[in-house]
Amino acid sequence: MRVSELSRRTGVQVPLIKYYLREGMLPPGRATASNQADYGEEHVHRLRLIRTLIATRGLSAGATKAILDAIAAEQEDLHQVFGIVLGVRPTVREGDSGAERPSTEPEAAGLADARRLIAEMGWDVSQGNPAAHTLAEVLAALSGLGADIDWHGLLPYARLADSIADLDVQQMRGERDLLAQAERAVLVSVLLEPALLALRRLAQEDKSARQFGGGGPGAPGSITAADR
Amino acid sequence: MRVSELSRRTGVQVPLIKYYLREGMLPPGRATASNQADYGEEHVHRLRLIRTLIATRGLSAGATKAILDAIAAEQEDLHQVFGIVLGVRPTVREGDSGAERPSTEPEAAGLADARRLIAEMGWDVSQGNPAAHTLAEVLAALSGLGADIDWHGLLPYARLADSIADLDVQQMRGERDLLAQAERAVLVSVLLEPALLALRRLAQEDKSARQFGGGGPGAPGSITAADR
Repeated sequence: MRVSELSRRTGVQVPLIKYYLREGMLPPGRATASNQADYGEEHVHRLRLIRTLIATRGLSAGATKAILDAIAAEQEDLHQVFGIVLGVRPTVREGDSGAERPSTEPEAAGLADARRLIAEMGWDVSQGNPAAHTLAEVLAALSGLGADIDWHGLLPYARLADSIADLDVQQMRGERDLLAQAERAVLVSVLLEPALLALRRLAQEDKSARQFGGGGPGAPGSITAADR
Repeated sequence: MRVSELSRRTGVQVPLIKYYLREGMLPPGRATASNQADYGEEHVHRLRLIRTLIATRGLSAGATKAILDAIAAEQEDLHQVFGIVLGVRPTVREGDSGAERPSTEPEAAGLADARRLIAEMGWDVSQGNPAAHTLAEVLAALSGLGADIDWHGLLPYARLADSIADLDVQQMRGERDLLAQAERAVLVSVLLEPALLALRRLAQEDKSARQFGGGGPGAPGSITAADR
């Protein structure tokens, strides 16, 4: 297809496509004339991946290129691709190995608790997974606020997160093309994040209404099956 | 307790405490001398709630005050308090009723799909719940990217979100003081969000390793129970 068709298919403006071509983020098309090229489905996929990375993770073009390069280098290994997408594998490899030392005492305590939870769940995760630090920060914040929710209290949540990850990995099956798998890993891991939080908030409103509310189904303004 | 002790207990600097007092976000203490006041546990709780709202939701002091005022006005009704925390109930009441009309066709299609999912789950949620719009945006983005995940594909996730909300509501029980309940609603609904996403990412790495990886448990850099 011509670049105009590629633009139409992906919703990416032609000047931006030319920028991605110049930067090497999009492989060149097959030259058909001195000033024309033919693009294929792989270009559609690659453009969607670029736009998804930039739109959903707020990455710069440079950071996106680093991820694309890393994915290209790991095409054989879907686990590595998934790791890059999750931010587990640094796109600049080696060198900075070893766990980062937390700087404050609450952070250290939070990280120790995060590791206890990870061990209790039997999860095999790398030292570099930034999610362990996010979890540590939340545990430290909960403790600092005097809340009686500690890592034990998060175990039921961890079990549900485990079931969610099972669903996630099921989504990855059936893709043969590695670029399509990488795209899917981005979609599933990153784009579904706001969806999951939104689903939880919707369910929270429903449970809250049933548990504490007086309104119940049929209260004004509520959406129920009958309204469809 | 004196203001200095209140500062020590909550980690909030004295000048900031005085600012919250001036703004009426923190109720005045009991005057013990012309220039001294005595503060109690309710001040500790209120300060923690203020700091949690500002830190975890990135709210301005003004927006936080509006939420606090709304919670104070609804002290009788935990469902209303939960709704305010979730952003379901506008802190400025009435007037802007009715569903916002989506501006584009993909948004309208996304919203229709979000409503189908909500109806399928049997969730009783208000028109104003912003999470329905977030869900609609993700569904529109998935469709725009040509992904074969539609609202049916999100149903298994919705069922797990439903179980998470059950856990959330269980956390609300046992608090008698309404301010403590409001604080807990904030903690549970907002502060646990990054924790849930982090737990999912940790579980994803574990599943990905088992499904696609060659390393398996015991690979270098992995944290397992044996490392503790």
